Amino acid sequence: MPAHAAVLFANDAFYLAFANRDLDAMGDIWARDTSITCIHPGWEPLIGRDEVMESIEAILSNAPPTNITCKNPTVRVFGDIACVLCYEVLDQGTLVATNIFVHEDGQWKIIHHQAGAAPPPEATEDDLAAIMQ
Amino acid sequence: MPAHAAVLFANDAFYLAFANRDLDAMGDIWARDTSITCIHPGWEPLIGRDEVMESIEAILSNAPPTNITCKNPTVRVFGDIACVLCYEVLDQGTLVATNIFVHEDGQWKIIHHQAGAAPPPEATEDDLAAIMQ
Repeated sequence: MPAHAAVLFANDAFYLAFANRDLDAMGDIWARDTSITCIHPGWEPLIGRDEVMESIEAILSNAPPTNITCKNPTVRVFGDIACVLCYEVLDQGTLVATNIFVHEDGQWKIIHHQAGAAPPPEATEDDLAAIMQ
Repeated sequence: MPAHAAVLFANDAFYLAFANRDLDAMGDIWARDTSITCIHPGWEPLIGRDEVMESIEAILSNAPPTNITCKNPTVRVFGDIACVLCYEVLDQGTLVATNIFVHEDGQWKIIHHQAGAAPPPEATEDDLAAIMQ
């Protein structure tokens, strides 16, 4: 699989794990051999696997069920590091995220996530096609 | 200069250019040979040098003068890519940022910036030493 597609696949897996509240999948999606960091909206930066995973467990355990959809991802690959920008469309509103990945043991693993408030994404051609059906 | 220190220097130069409203310096700090992106707080992602530089020019030209200080930077270097997380302390409040750099022509240049709302940074030992003086 080309790196660009593999990174998109890993990015989708991150949001699928979030939507499914799948902590095991989430634990596997974040890198184990590289330091990881996370900035949730309005939070201070979380540094290290313990802080990041505890925060995600707290969010998935306490928040009400929510739909979350990744929209309009933009991928850049720089050797073993990749950066994805995307919208996160939730029931409560829209966020925009920076997700950074590392190629670790043959797989792309997330090493950093920052999400913050954003205007809704513009409709893409795929969205328009879906609307017109 | 070790990569870690050189990345911190580039990160400081970014905030100095912002504080000084120095568009020439800002233009030099952002990469020219690598695609660049930027997510200002509450904005949609800006993709490409034209969009990013226009937004920065608009911000520096229209906003009232502001103090901006980078606090508590955390640096990770992955070969020719580096990631800095830091607080941005402004007169109006505190933001937290992800800044990504590429090593381009022997210099670290910024290729992505995302900033969003955050609680104030915790005082570091340096800050506490300053307070106690």
